[in-house]
Amino acid sequence: MLGGGDDAAVVRARAVCVTSVDAMVEGVHFRLGEGWATPEEVGHRALAGALSDLAAMGVEPGEAYIVLGLPRGFEEADALALVRAADELALRTGAAIAGGDVVGAPVLTVAVTAVGWCEEPSAPVRRDGAEVDDLVGVTGSLGAGAAALAVFEGRAGATPAAAPALARARAPLPRLREGRALARAGVHAMIDVSDGLAADAAHLARASGVRLELSLQALPLHDGVREVAAELGRDPARLAAGGGEDYELCFCVAPARRAAVERALRDAGCQAPSWIGEVRAGAPQARFSDERGDAVRLEGYEHRWR
Amino acid sequence: MLGGGDDAAVVRARAVCVTSVDAMVEGVHFRLGEGWATPEEVGHRALAGALSDLAAMGVEPGEAYIVLGLPRGFEEADALALVRAADELALRTGAAIAGGDVVGAPVLTVAVTAVGWCEEPSAPVRRDGAEVDDLVGVTGSLGAGAAALAVFEGRAGATPAAAPALARARAPLPRLREGRALARAGVHAMIDVSDGLAADAAHLARASGVRLELSLQALPLHDGVREVAAELGRDPARLAAGGGEDYELCFCVAPARRAAVERALRDAGCQAPSWIGEVRAGAPQARFSDERGDAVRLEGYEHRWR
Repeated sequence: MLGGGDDAAVVRARAVCVTSVDAMVEGVHFRLGEGWATPEEVGHRALAGALSDLAAMGVEPGEAYIVLGLPRGFEEADALALVRAADELALRTGAAIAGGDVVGAPVLTVAVTAVGWCEEPSAPVRRDGAEVDDLVGVTGSLGAGAAALAVFEGRAGATPAAAPALARARAPLPRLREGRALARAGVHAMIDVSDGLAADAAHLARASGVRLELSLQALPLHDGVREVAAELGRDPARLAAGGGEDYELCFCVAPARRAAVERALRDAGCQAPSWIGEVRAGAPQARFSDERGDAVRLEGYEHRWR
Repeated sequence: MLGGGDDAAVVRARAVCVTSVDAMVEGVHFRLGEGWATPEEVGHRALAGALSDLAAMGVEPGEAYIVLGLPRGFEEADALALVRAADELALRTGAAIAGGDVVGAPVLTVAVTAVGWCEEPSAPVRRDGAEVDDLVGVTGSLGAGAAALAVFEGRAGATPAAAPALARARAPLPRLREGRALARAGVHAMIDVSDGLAADAAHLARASGVRLELSLQALPLHDGVREVAAELGRDPARLAAGGGEDYELCFCVAPARRAAVERALRDAGCQAPSWIGEVRAGAPQARFSDERGDAVRLEGYEHRWR
């Protein structure tokens, strides 16, 4: 950053600018208070959500700008804690909070603009490049968001077994290193799993005009998701596919590049991906099948902590 | 824009990126409904506020990103009208709406990120460069925001005489051409008058570590401000100095550059500026004097339509 504290922030640019905007609103995207989110978690998650979009484009994070809408009586210390948590996540991910604004609002509102950079206009990975016969992969593990929601809403207990899912949901990490490695490895299309794999895979399918055939069995489940699903009497993979805010990356790549993808992730110090399906011609949608290969219909999705 | 409709917008960059974020919240910055703001005016004013920050930096506008927080029951047609009005202002000013997001919110909330570009890191005009003996100038005319607020709140009548002030307040124009011309003419410091001249001149004074001596008599008043002030029993210049959301530019420039500033504005097809004071050494503040040269204390300021 060349200058802040003025009407606008001034930064040196690189060739191509990639910008994502996002907002989190109390009562819609989170609740504050005992057993729900802390101000720190809200700050972390708001920035994580915006950075996750940059991860899905495969670009390097640059600056973030935060507009805080503070309700009357919201403690200054809590506002500072929120911003500090976002700042810590920025430091960890190579981003920098370069500006922002504070306004009054009826409920806590956090709007984040995240800016990433790359050298070539063709470098950012879009949603619309999936090709028939591509493999579909996903980073990390799914289901922590849905499991945590069940606990926060009192539908499942905050048992020790659920703790890893809760911890992850409270502080998701945008997959920026993974996104850049996958872009370098030549993936055709990529999206971040913010609305839930079922919804986001469908977004990618529609943008690319292809069908994604996905295997429920192949979904990587976060620690604790099985236990929470058992308590809910739910199939854990269905819970994970329907749940949002996991912030993993779902991508499509030519089968011949499978080893290159695995190597690129390993070289970047990232976890191996899970291969969860294939791209087929057909009506643009994401179709899940169960262990017997039968199509499974996932009803809606359960995201957002409301 | 190279690509939209993805996780993020992709644009070709220029050398230096200048970013401003801003938000308007129903009940805090505007009210909707009969006699108050329409969705179109909200969209226009939200973008105008963000672009005005770029005008004050003297840079060219580029992309704008809009996050809409929509309350339950807010009509889709109204949301589209809001965005269309912002889009029209973008077209008029050389900006482009390149992306956005829609979330739920308890009240209508519009967060805008405006991005401007220039070629040199030193080109953006900051608030902190005012020098002792500089002249202080202001573009256009002041007071429409304060006069309109009085009418909207029912403290003054919506008379024909007040109409020009109302029209201006409903659709303020960010002074982008003026800002670029003033930057080219070598002004030392600049700020946009969004919180009111008294407040914003004080911001500039503090950032620059100087005192601004301003003459109430010299303030350019928008048509209709005198009439509304008379109805309120107020001095029109004091009303204008205290009122916000006029979105004019206040700038400081070496006395020797006065003619160059006037020429630059004329060449850009802009109105002549008003010269409203001088920069002096002393405690950093903005001091107004009346027609007798006596210091005037302006109590607070009346901005924000609440």
